[in-house]
Order: sequence, then structure tokens, then C-alpha cells
Amino acid sequence: MSRKIIIDTDPGQDDAVAILLALASPEELEVLGIVAVAGNVGLHQNATNARKIVELAGRPEVPVYAGCSRPLRRALVTAEHVHGETGLNGPDLPAPSVPLQAQHGVDYIIDTLMGAEPGTITLCTLGPLTNIAMALIKQPAIAGRIAEIVMMGGAYFEVGNITPTAEFNIYVDPEGADVVLRCGAPITMLPLDVTHQIQSTPERLAAMLAIGNNSATAAHAMLTFSETFDLAKYGWAGAPLHDPTVIAWLLRPELFTGRQCNVAVETASELTVGMTVADYWHVTGRDRNVNYLRNGDAEGFYALLLDRLARLP
Amino acid sequence: MSRKIIIDTDPGQDDAVAILLALASPEELEVLGIVAVAGNVGLHQNATNARKIVELAGRPEVPVYAGCSRPLRRALVTAEHVHGETGLNGPDLPAPSVPLQAQHGVDYIIDTLMGAEPGTITLCTLGPLTNIAMALIKQPAIAGRIAEIVMMGGAYFEVGNITPTAEFNIYVDPEGADVVLRCGAPITMLPLDVTHQIQSTPERLAAMLAIGNNSATAAHAMLTFSETFDLAKYGWAGAPLHDPTVIAWLLRPELFTGRQCNVAVETASELTVGMTVADYWHVTGRDRNVNYLRNGDAEGFYALLLDRLARLP
Amino acid sequence: MSRKIIIDTDPGQDDAVAILLALASPEELEVLGIVAVAGNVGLHQNATNARKIVELAGRPEVPVYAGCSRPLRRALVTAEHVHGETGLNGPDLPAPSVPLQAQHGVDYIIDTLMGAEPGTITLCTLGPLTNIAMALIKQPAIAGRIAEIVMMGGAYFEVGNITPTAEFNIYVDPEGADVVLRCGAPITMLPLDVTHQIQSTPERLAAMLAIGNNSATAAHAMLTFSETFDLAKYGWAGAPLHDPTVIAWLLRPELFTGRQCNVAVETASELTVGMTVADYWHVTGRDRNVNYLRNGDAEGFYALLLDRLARLP
Amino acid sequence: MSRKIIIDTDPGQDDAVAILLALASPEELEVLGIVAVAGNVGLHQNATNARKIVELAGRPEVPVYAGCSRPLRRALVTAEHVHGETGLNGPDLPAPSVPLQAQHGVDYIIDTLMGAEPGTITLCTLGPLTNIAMALIKQPAIAGRIAEIVMMGGAYFEVGNITPTAEFNIYVDPEGADVVLRCGAPITMLPLDVTHQIQSTPERLAAMLAIGNNSATAAHAMLTFSETFDLAKYGWAGAPLHDPTVIAWLLRPELFTGRQCNVAVETASELTVGMTVADYWHVTGRDRNVNYLRNGDAEGFYALLLDRLARLP
Repeated sequence: MSRKIIIDTDPGQDDAVAILLALASPEELEVLGIVAVAGNVGLHQNATNARKIVELAGRPEVPVYAGCSRPLRRALVTAEHVHGETGLNGPDLPAPSVPLQAQHGVDYIIDTLMGAEPGTITLCTLGPLTNIAMALIKQPAIAGRIAEIVMMGGAYFEVGNITPTAEFNIYVDPEGADVVLRCGAPITMLPLDVTHQIQSTPERLAAMLAIGNNSATAAHAMLTFSETFDLAKYGWAGAPLHDPTVIAWLLRPELFTGRQCNVAVETASELTVGMTVADYWHVTGRDRNVNYLRNGDAEGFYALLLDRLARLP
Repeated sequence: MSRKIIIDTDPGQDDAVAILLALASPEELEVLGIVAVAGNVGLHQNATNARKIVELAGRPEVPVYAGCSRPLRRALVTAEHVHGETGLNGPDLPAPSVPLQAQHGVDYIIDTLMGAEPGTITLCTLGPLTNIAMALIKQPAIAGRIAEIVMMGGAYFEVGNITPTAEFNIYVDPEGADVVLRCGAPITMLPLDVTHQIQSTPERLAAMLAIGNNSATAAHAMLTFSETFDLAKYGWAGAPLHDPTVIAWLLRPELFTGRQCNVAVETASELTVGMTVADYWHVTGRDRNVNYLRNGDAEGFYALLLDRLARLP
Repeated sequence: MSRKIIIDTDPGQDDAVAILLALASPEELEVLGIVAVAGNVGLHQNATNARKIVELAGRPEVPVYAGCSRPLRRALVTAEHVHGETGLNGPDLPAPSVPLQAQHGVDYIIDTLMGAEPGTITLCTLGPLTNIAMALIKQPAIAGRIAEIVMMGGAYFEVGNITPTAEFNIYVDPEGADVVLRCGAPITMLPLDVTHQIQSTPERLAAMLAIGNNSATAAHAMLTFSETFDLAKYGWAGAPLHDPTVIAWLLRPELFTGRQCNVAVETASELTVGMTVADYWHVTGRDRNVNYLRNGDAEGFYALLLDRLARLP
Repeated sequence: MSRKIIIDTDPGQDDAVAILLALASPEELEVLGIVAVAGNVGLHQNATNARKIVELAGRPEVPVYAGCSRPLRRALVTAEHVHGETGLNGPDLPAPSVPLQAQHGVDYIIDTLMGAEPGTITLCTLGPLTNIAMALIKQPAIAGRIAEIVMMGGAYFEVGNITPTAEFNIYVDPEGADVVLRCGAPITMLPLDVTHQIQSTPERLAAMLAIGNNSATAAHAMLTFSETFDLAKYGWAGAPLHDPTVIAWLLRPELFTGRQCNVAVETASELTVGMTVADYWHVTGRDRNVNYLRNGDAEGFYALLLDRLARLP
């Protein structure tokens, strides 16, 4: 039986690949809807990008919503230096013809959760946690109805990527992340600790290009564009691939290992704001609110990703 | 021409008197709607109380909405120790027959502002600023359409009433207050600095009771209940009357004096969280975002209040 | 029997008047030594100023020490905008001939306390609390030997004078203040709450000048210089007189009223750093570490000051 | 020509091995004095342990001083759970006969630096930075006279060992660390990032025991005791060896690699207090105040340590 998911996202090349991976796996994942949030670039552009991706995947019936255009408290920080001006630089995708849904994304999340059986819908978050936090504040009853929140975000054993201590998704809206981390729903985090192990080496990118369909070709073009920043910074053989790990964990949890522990987000100090502090050795006595994944199998992940991309148009 | 207002409130005895004062002044104030927020007591009780008040005032057509049941980030703190278990202890008001509106209060605020001419609607806030902050985050475009936000909240020259440094409305949701204070809309604050000067002395309460109509009699019963806490704490001749100053300022701004200056809210430190720091002497270089009222004319205020209560059923 | 005191100070016109008041009261106060600290101006200038004052008072045998030239953690902030370039602008006092003591002021404090009977020496602090904090850290055993710390510093009912929330002495070294406030020794604070009530009106200054001796004439010149800033800022009839209240409280405690309560200093947030949060109504459960004085009798104070200044050369 | 060093330390088994390594290298390092500080255990015990070690090494003429018994602001935290009740559990060393010096360790540091040619004395810190910070506050002129501060402390790529984010030495006195990190003197840090690579495997410990002299035998006993905690926590083949890396870096800097970058210490937030935030990729614009070492050659380190221990009695 397939698992019902809502994808909350700010595409973003790696978000786009995650969406493709989900849409390529209909037997396991039913994508109820996609909700855009401000993050890698502005909200409007992110929503447009999401619409392009569902069309690229041949799944124009998947509804796309726009959520929040700003974080809870902070001024929006974006990452065009990584993703390009459109957030999806790389491939030359046509302007989307599927419409943006009229409903606000936060209300879509609330209504969908409140209208379904409790415990049947999983939230997959690939960007800042503003929409999920807003939904939790506006309608706290959803917390008890979420099957699970699976998020790409945070860093602990690996250090930050936007500041010395903070990962981008959390840094953009640390108060939003704080609301989500303390909401009581089951949470699985895929932090940089994992994603820095999932690197798009030249061999892997070549294999992706070799698939030859539109989706894989576009994915290859995206990752070839977005890898520039990380390769220059870290000197690695391949750039880390972040957001698709969320979908991969849903499909193949055995590819990842980690531990149930407390994760808290720094919001009080500017020096460390946005850091996700994982109490991996349980030294603080704080509650174990997160399934914190620390390691991932890059070979297994790429085998899965390439297999699924090949199923798309 | 009357001024269109939305009242955001957590009644609360002094909220109730403020609503009565507004409803008693239809030539000057058009109350478009009343939105409840969690604060003095829980959301549901506050919404019920608001419905009781519009009926008491003979204005059942004024719609009442329920907004948020929790602050943005913090666990809800309530004040039954001041207001009693119902939030409106004192009079024996009947259960309301007017229905609660179905729409979420945050959406009511957004839709009303987006559907009206810019600059025509004033928000009067008598409780924590959660609903206004949520509306600003969900639809940032409202900031440019708000005529003014007039809020009871904060303390600077007077010290805090819930902690040594924080006034209750701000303390309950300091992040919400922060969002509102930095939203760019015109803001007038009526802090404890003013409201501690507006004291319900026995003479003033007796004059209220002497009015003899249901509304004034209920108002008298409310204030007689809620004054207990302050009288015991401060040893004053009368308890301060907070929320009605918001309405009084709309009706008779000449009763108040203050200064345009920066006001910022403490959110980083637990010691001082919720304090509203007013840069009254412009020593910081921060922008002058608030019309910060410091003094009020208690005699003039009470003359106004009693005159208006006498017009109600 | 006279009370043994050490005066820790950053003169400063009001510090100078405090020293004069102490030196004019030998039957009640034995000034063991004066220790300079960086504050109103730099350490060297403050130490020079202290030497000028003991000579002005005809008490060159009172030893003067130099303590710390910087706060514990923060960059030194000074107040030449109030006190003038020398820190003692106003009178034309000769360069001092009494030498500065060779010993570091922090060690003088430690050695004097450790060498005397416990409970026999009172520390009077008129500036930032750096020296006292350093002594407490270097030799924690002094905490149990201090008879009392009587400090001018802080603000609660009155707001800050250097920032919207902080009084200057505490703001300069909030970490130092924190160490002192939590040291366990008896503490009496004279905050702006008191000193803003002790104003040097023109009549009082005229009476000081009429005394006619060198000390009173110099004190008059000092206060005439330093009042400029406050008169322009607050529009009061006279500038507040801060530091002499410490000595006045030792001489005539009945001139002041206050309450034993907790006082904590803000060190975590830049918005409110240096604020002294007094839990005047005991709402926090924190220990009652300070005798917090809130009101002072200005008439009584000035009668005392003028009487004592008349005894000096 | 040998390099003059002062060792500031809280022995501690690994401190003791560091001292032995320094004392075993007289041709390269002249140990002017050893100053104890509160940390792993209390000050008095740490000073006693230092005296035991100089006797064990046959170097009773090296003077031992006691510095501060408490951190600048925080209550002292100790680590008997790692080091045992004496801080030096493991070997059975005799009570020392060499006396503790009478001078306070902070004054010894100041006087030694002020009495020597600028740039000729290196401070090696193996514990909390209280003494160094106190010396810098009491006599700021020493900052310009320190040749270098080489410290074991902090963690960035490796996470904390006492809290999820903080290394013990920094955590005990974060304000002290802050003072030192911003003092302007050249600083080299050996954080957990390095020391977690220097592990005392069973083979290495066996080789140490095989040396057969008293010093190596005692060092073996010490490390065999103190490894228990880390082996249980991390499941590694050997416990990390922290403090001796400071001495090893002075002797063989080519064993280590790192980068000049900014390091700042968290003092504002309780969640992350004591974390050393290294701006390893220069993304913040903060000044490059530290030579931050990230990697160490464990084989080379152990070859050096065993060679030198063999030279001791």
C-alpha cells in the first residue's frame, strides 16, 4: 500500500530531484500535493519551479500550492549563490501550464490533515519549516494527526553550510524549526551529517545522463549547475545531494542509520542561531523527539535514484 | 465619519469594558468584527466571552471569530489568578446565543484587510499579538493596508506586571509582538505606563454602578472582581484599567500624550523576555516605529467611559 | 565607633562629592583607602582625580590605588559626554602631589579584607564593579569577610541612563556586576530609582557655593559642569546626584526606603544588557540578595551634604 | 635554543602526561613554571597533582603555583566522573614534598611576562582559561608580550564532550575563553577535532608500559584509568589523548595541520554555551584570530611521546 505524503519544498535543484524521485515511485508514495515555501529563492519562483517539475515528470494532476513568502520572525535569506537566479538553473524547462492552486499552502496542509484519518499522512519537508510551523500554530490539532514529519535540515556532526554552525533550511526560519521540533509528532531528520555522504560524483552524474529520458537529463543538468558551489568550497569529488534523501528514506529506510535523541534548535544567540543541537549521547535529559539519521549508504541511494529516474518520461 | 475597526481580544474583564466602550460609540467607531485569541484564558472561553459581550451590548450582529489558541513559539501562559476561571468572573452573564463564526480569525483579518481600501481599517489589539502576527506572516501584503494598529501592551516607565520586566500581553507571545512591532504599519501603544494612571477608584466604580443599565452594572461587577489582584499587590486606591484605553485613544486622543520612538521586544533572554524596550530619548539610532503613549488623563477617560456606558442597554 | 570603608570609584564629579562627603565624616566613617577603576573616564585619569580629591579635602594620608583599566569581558565604554575630558571638569584643581600606591587595587582590596576581622570592612562602590568582581574571583574567601557592599548602580523603576534599560556603572561591566550580585555578601543598592529623586536644584547649588570653603566651592563647580547633560535630556529643575547617596546611606540610612529582594543583571541579550532586574514583588522565587533602595529624602540628603561639606577645608 | 613556556593546567591524567612530555624535552622547552587552575577537579587538588608530577619527572625545581579556584562567572563544574576523585587516579604517587609557591598564579603569569622580553614566553593552557583571562584583565599589557598561547580546548568538527556542543575546558569558563580568544595575542588551538584522532590504543599503551621507567609506568596507569569513560561512550579502540598535543605541537608542529580563522565562543545561550565556533571557511568576515588545528598524525605523535617518556626517570 502506498504512503500518502505532502511535499513542502523550495525547489531548488535538489528539491526538484527529490520531487522526481517521489513522483517516480507511485506504488510506494502517493504525492497528495506539493506546497512551496520561501527559501532557496522567493516563494513565487519556488512555486513556479514546482509546477515545472510535476509537468517534467508527466504528473500535471499533482496540485501545487504556495505557502508562506517569509519566515516567522526573520528577514528572508535566499541562496541564489548556490541555486542560480531561478532557483532551478541548469536545465531549460518550459514555463508551466498547470495552474497554481488558489488555496494558501498552510490551509491546504491543515485541511488535508484534518480531513484524513489520523496517522495516514506524512509531511516531507525539503525547505524552511515555515509552512509546517504556521499550520501547527493555526491549528494545533494537526500535530496529533501527522503520521510523521521527515525533514531534510540541520547539521550536528557535520558543521553548518550557511554559517559556521547552521544548515540553510533551519537557518532561514529557526523559530519555525523550533515550533516543528517541539510539536510532538514523530520526526525523522536527514541532516548534513547524512547528505554530505551522498555525493554526486562524476560517475554517478554520468550514469544519470545516460538514462536518456527528459527527467534524468534535466536532473543531470540541475545537479551539474548546483554542484559548483560545494565543489569549490569543500574540494570534494562530488557535491552532496540533500533533499532526495528524505524520499529515499521513505522508500528504503535500511539505507540509513541513526538514533532517537533530542534535537533542539538555537534561536537565542546570533553566533550560533539555526544550529540543530543533537543530544546524540543523551547527556542532557531532554526528551528524545527526533529520529536523527547520521549515516547513509551512498551506493544504495544512487542505485535507487537512478532506477527510479529511469521510470519517468 | 466613523472609523472601521477590528478588535482582537482575550476577554478578560478589561477587554470586555473596552468592547462595550467601542460598541457604545457607533457614530465614531464601526466595529467590523471581534477576533478572540488565547491569553487571559484559553481561546474557546475568550471567544465565548466576546459573544456574551456583544449580546450584553445589544449588538448581536457584530461577528465574533476565534483565532489562535497558542502563541507562536511559547507555551501558553494564562492569568486566571487575575481574571477568574472564566476570564470574565464577576457578572452573571447568560450563555450566548449568537454563533461563533466559522472562519478562522486570522483569515478573517487577512480577508477583511485585503478586501477593503488600503488605510481604512484599524486593528485594536487587547491581548497577545498572535493573530496579528500570524496574519502578517501568512499574508505580508496586509502590512501596507492597515490604517493603524492600536495596542494595549508593554511597559517601560512602569515595570512589568507578570514578570519583573514584562507586561502580560507581550509576555504571552513575545515573538508575535516582535513580528507586529517590526511590520511597518503605523502603531500606537498603550502600555502600563498609561494604564497604571487610569485607576478605577471606588468613586469611579460607584458612578459606574449608578448608571443602572445592564451593561454598566455588568462592567461594574467585572471590575470589582478583577481589581482584587492589583489592589493587593500595589496597595493603590483603584486597580488600573488597561484595555479600554485603546478605544479611548481612538475616541479622544487628546486624553493621552507620548512620543514617536523605537520600541523593541526582548525575545533572546529569559531574564527579561517580553520586555518592551522604548528608546524614548532616541539614544540607539533604531527607527521610530511606535507612537508610544506615556501619560493619560484619568478624569477625562472616566468621564468618557461613563458617558458611553450610559448609552448602552 | 566609626565604620571602616574602602571606596571603589571612577571620579567623576559625583564620585568626587561622594568622597568629600565620606572624608568630611571621620567620626562615622574611616576611609581606609580609595581604589580607582575605569569607567567615567580611563583608569589613569580616574586615579589622578581621586588623588586630587583627597588633597582638596586635606586628607593626603588616605592612600589611593589603581585597579582595573578594563571591564571583565566588554570593551570599555566611557562617559566624557557627561563628565568632560578629565572626568572632573568644572573646578581647576592642582595636579596632585600625593603618590599613587604601587599595589594593584584588586590586591589591596583582597589583602585588606583578608587581614582584618571578618565583617568589619564595607565596600562602597561608585563605579563599574570590575575591581570587586576581580577580587572575588581571585580570592573567593573575601565574600564571607565583607561587612557589606553598598553600591551606586542600576535602575529598575527608573529607566536606564546610558541605554534605554541600563544604568552606566552596570552597563560598563555587566559581567562584573553579575559576579558581585551573586557573591553572597550583604548588598545595598542605590539605583537611579533613588538618585533621580536627589536633584541639585539651583537653590541647593547656591547653598553649596555659599559655604565658601575650597571643597564646597569645587563641588559646586563640579556639579555645575556635570548637570548640563541631564538638564538637557530630562528637562528637570536639577540634575540627579548619584554617588553621594552611597555615603549618605551609611551616615543616615533613615533617609532611604526600599526592600530586600532579588536583583539580577542582564548579560545575555544585547537589547537589554546591563539592566538590573529587581524582583520587587517577589514573583520569581529568586533569592533576596539585595537591599534595594527605591526612595530617598532629597531635603534630608542635601541638609546632610551641606553640613558635612562645611566641615572640610 | 629552547622555548620558554608556562604551563597552565588542571591535572588531570592527560595534563600530567603533557607536563611529563614538556619536562622530558629540556633542549627544546624551558618550563618556567606550572600554574594550577580549577577544572578537572578543585584547585587545591590540581596544584597538589602538579607538584607530584614535577617530582615524578625528577624536576622538583620547577615552581608550581595555584591560580584561580573558580571561573569568571559560572559555578565551577568538575569532571571526577572521568578523572577520579583525585583528578589523577591510576598510579599511586607519593605526596609531594616540593612546596606550593606562595604567589598567586595569576600574578606569577603577569610578573613573568612583564619582566621578560616581549615575545619570549609562550603560554601552554591545558585547562579552563580562567588564569589567563584574569591576568589579561588585571594587566592588559601582557597581551602584547605573549609569544603565543597554545591551548587544548574547544571543538568544532568534532562535537562537544561535556555537552552536545561544548568541550570541557571551554565549557567550565566560557567567559574566560572569550577574553583570551579576543586578546590579540597569537593563539593556536588544539580542539577535540585533533585530539579525537590521537587515540591511546592498547598497542600504544603497551609500548608505554614497556618503557619501564617510573614516569612511563605512571603515565600508563593514568591513561588506563581515564580511558574508561571515553571507551564506554564512543566505542573506540582507544581513548583520545588531549593535553599532550599542546606540547607535541611545540615540539613537532609538522604533525598537525589546520587553518588561520576566526574562533568565537558562545556565552549568550544556555543551549550552546561553551561551543567554539570556528569560521573555517571564512564566511562571516570575523577576524582570523586563531591558528585552528584540525588534523593530527597519531603515529607521529605516539612515536614522539614514547621517545620522550623514555628519557625521564
